[in-house]
Amino acid sequence: MDPRASVLTQRLADAGQSHLLQFWNELSPEEQADLTIDLQGMDFQEISGFFKNAMETSSSSKQEKMDARMGPVPREVLGSVTRDRDSLKDWELAGLDCISQSKVAALLLAGGQGTRLGVSYPKGMYDVGLPSHKTLFQIQAERILKLQQLAEQKHKIKCCIPWYIMTSGRTMESTKDFFSRHNHFGLDKNNIIFFQQGMLPAMDYNGKIILENKGKLSMAPDGNGGLYRALGNQHIMDDMERRGIEFIHVYCVDNILVKVADPAFVGFCVQKGADCGAKVVEKTNPTEAVGVVCKVDGHYQVVEYSEITLATAEKRSADGRLMFNAGNVANHFFSFSFLKDVVQKYEPKLQHHVAQKKIPFVNTQGQLIKPDKPNGIKMEKFVFDIFQFAKTFVVYEVLREDEFSPLKNADSQDAKDTPTTARHALMSLHHRWVLNAGGHFIDENGRRVPAIPSLKDGTDLPIKCEISPLVSYGGEGLEELVKGREFHPTLMIDESGVHELVKNGV
Amino acid sequence: MDPRASVLTQRLADAGQSHLLQFWNELSPEEQADLTIDLQGMDFQEISGFFKNAMETSSSSKQEKMDARMGPVPREVLGSVTRDRDSLKDWELAGLDCISQSKVAALLLAGGQGTRLGVSYPKGMYDVGLPSHKTLFQIQAERILKLQQLAEQKHKIKCCIPWYIMTSGRTMESTKDFFSRHNHFGLDKNNIIFFQQGMLPAMDYNGKIILENKGKLSMAPDGNGGLYRALGNQHIMDDMERRGIEFIHVYCVDNILVKVADPAFVGFCVQKGADCGAKVVEKTNPTEAVGVVCKVDGHYQVVEYSEITLATAEKRSADGRLMFNAGNVANHFFSFSFLKDVVQKYEPKLQHHVAQKKIPFVNTQGQLIKPDKPNGIKMEKFVFDIFQFAKTFVVYEVLREDEFSPLKNADSQDAKDTPTTARHALMSLHHRWVLNAGGHFIDENGRRVPAIPSLKDGTDLPIKCEISPLVSYGGEGLEELVKGREFHPTLMIDESGVHELVKNGV
Repeated sequence: MDPRASVLTQRLADAGQSHLLQFWNELSPEEQADLTIDLQGMDFQEISGFFKNAMETSSSSKQEKMDARMGPVPREVLGSVTRDRDSLKDWELAGLDCISQSKVAALLLAGGQGTRLGVSYPKGMYDVGLPSHKTLFQIQAERILKLQQLAEQKHKIKCCIPWYIMTSGRTMESTKDFFSRHNHFGLDKNNIIFFQQGMLPAMDYNGKIILENKGKLSMAPDGNGGLYRALGNQHIMDDMERRGIEFIHVYCVDNILVKVADPAFVGFCVQKGADCGAKVVEKTNPTEAVGVVCKVDGHYQVVEYSEITLATAEKRSADGRLMFNAGNVANHFFSFSFLKDVVQKYEPKLQHHVAQKKIPFVNTQGQLIKPDKPNGIKMEKFVFDIFQFAKTFVVYEVLREDEFSPLKNADSQDAKDTPTTARHALMSLHHRWVLNAGGHFIDENGRRVPAIPSLKDGTDLPIKCEISPLVSYGGEGLEELVKGREFHPTLMIDESGVHELVKNGV
Repeated sequence: MDPRASVLTQRLADAGQSHLLQFWNELSPEEQADLTIDLQGMDFQEISGFFKNAMETSSSSKQEKMDARMGPVPREVLGSVTRDRDSLKDWELAGLDCISQSKVAALLLAGGQGTRLGVSYPKGMYDVGLPSHKTLFQIQAERILKLQQLAEQKHKIKCCIPWYIMTSGRTMESTKDFFSRHNHFGLDKNNIIFFQQGMLPAMDYNGKIILENKGKLSMAPDGNGGLYRALGNQHIMDDMERRGIEFIHVYCVDNILVKVADPAFVGFCVQKGADCGAKVVEKTNPTEAVGVVCKVDGHYQVVEYSEITLATAEKRSADGRLMFNAGNVANHFFSFSFLKDVVQKYEPKLQHHVAQKKIPFVNTQGQLIKPDKPNGIKMEKFVFDIFQFAKTFVVYEVLREDEFSPLKNADSQDAKDTPTTARHALMSLHHRWVLNAGGHFIDENGRRVPAIPSLKDGTDLPIKCEISPLVSYGGEGLEELVKGREFHPTLMIDESGVHELVKNGV
């Protein structure tokens, strides 16, 4: 055995993790070397601490207590695109102003793999089947490009929205390679900054690290809240400081409708003097599976849908709306100074959440077992865990149909949040943009299609229509292209003009 | 030729419908007899009048004008289960009081065939796959039985909710036979009154009646608004009068959640002194395909989603809600005197709506053609067309998840309103009833399932739970059966008790 291994052996014994070496003698030299590297990089004492704290927190019967502690978001911290229509334009201008001064960065959480989606590559590389076949990464990149242009046109000044992209160990190489092969979608590659979230081992209920095979630990990313630790240990905050970033828009890769660096959201938060803000959509059905932003013991927090009783989920305000209706869409605003405090001061205080999982493992006989009941935990921090530390927290409510359609699952009957629902959501939005800009669609019989088309065969198929982000960020600038015109779908509007694609794809 | 045929020949010539006899000599004697009977029963002059009026109305460019004429439902005529919670109990008691005095009837619109659903029998006979395998008819019958019981228990008086069931010519026999074979589901058969809506021929754009084969006219039911004519010509109003009916709840067969003769709805309408009322659910997405109750030129009306521009559909009130959000669910209240006036005075004033359709026809060569473009029209009246005549019209807003899940289409990917969505809606409601009565569900690992269960494999499968209407009409009376108890799904609660069905069906 490698001389260093004996030091390691002792460290493992001290940490109660000696079982990780139980198959050592059966491993090839390469496997032994890989395992040694993995184990040497691990702080067992820290991991044991995480485990202990996480298990303690999760075992206290949270749900029963939560109900009494929850309070709704007060109206005075809420901005709403439906209820504050008169302020919208102001907020957007304020946000564009910040963007034009290059004070705004976008930060993309892209550490997840497309496991539930059934693919082995990062989700951002997914093509949901739009007429253009653009991937999620390309759509987001082009929105950033367009937004820079809009800010530049408005303020006659060159500007830049740096794009920070957090991957995981498993997705870093393929993500960087994808961007490089696509020439960074027209963005300056110096303004795209990749960094990597941490991983943690899966543990059994006794705190033993699980082996996924004889020479390999079962590892998983440490949750999207791993962001804060990664920002620190990879010196991302320094990079932001150097660039003069003052405001950061954090979002998830899987939302095809995401308004990256949304100027109205940024402007609202800035005008309110907020250090932290959450974009939400209204939850309208008590049993919808969405976490809600609310106050718990006076501090802002996201309460997950599984933590809440039905009685609380069904509570209503006097206006008839659900009392806890601020549906979290993983779309947040941070001031630079707050984010810096989070990274330096608050992150270590955050506890990991426990996700009980069925984790494949090798038993003491060396056989691979796929359990049919949960047999261990993964530990995760959540990006919204730091809301509690904000001094001025605000909530910004937007319309689901305009801004939120996440891609989570493969297409199948009754599945939610699929490539099909994402594609339809985008085309439906762009259909509405065309109508609101004065365009019309006509059907195969030459008749105008009503604004709300009939269901065909009981399925709700949208008019096929796609508008490149390079042409319009949020519906603006389309009148001159479509007003008073009639189009046969598929309608495609991109940098080269307005096209009607006929069915055979010509 | 039959001597009467020559009279008929003249009538057809006068009406411009001589083409209906063009294949006369090719028909068998039986076919000739059938055709003669069909033609003799037809008032060609009346039908021509319907056609002329319907086409004139439909050709005036309705949509453009509609927007300016529309106004929302004023708050003072609205009752809401979410915004008027304090009044709910009062309304329900008032309704139960009317029911106990046998003043309330239920009227079921069941004329449609299950064509889109892919079955050849009436929709009410459909089994959506509940654990009990009850049909829609049985579920509704049992709700009526239970409601009678609740009213009797409350008021210590025997009562009856007569059930008027409108079928079409095509569904009458099979419907009556189905009820008879099932012993009228425990109801007194004297209190179930079947009647039949009319049929009208399909016409081409020149007003010629379409032949679906050489000896048979293409006929279709005259719309759910055919109700009013049928009520008159089959003396149903007389039957109601004889029974002392004062209030009628009209609803469609396809809504699995329908609260038949809903006492809260009836009580609200009665307390408001309404002669006509519409139950609605909130429309929350501008492009949802649902008609909305609103005012047009000061009179109440349902505006169909295809008649409205996007700009109007997207209009919002100051509270952020859609301005036109009273989604019609074909669930109406009438006072007897209003309904009588409608039948006697207003019905003839209603014009038919034109539905452009692809109607199979025989061409002059006698070949059957299935057109790929609309080639003619069907004429229909709508049940809500008479709202305009109400003196005191009210609107009652309920929760979609509690009361509305229509069955329209066969199961298939992306289809809406299917057997699966109907089944899930009912089980989800009953799951919530159990939780609110203090029961709990546990999973295969013995752990309590959260109130909002996690998505499994990305599909939103409800806890399997069904409660017989004979046990609970609207969630009441379950505490003694479930409070503090834990259940493994499938949970079934019926007259014989509380059962947990294990997977192999034992």
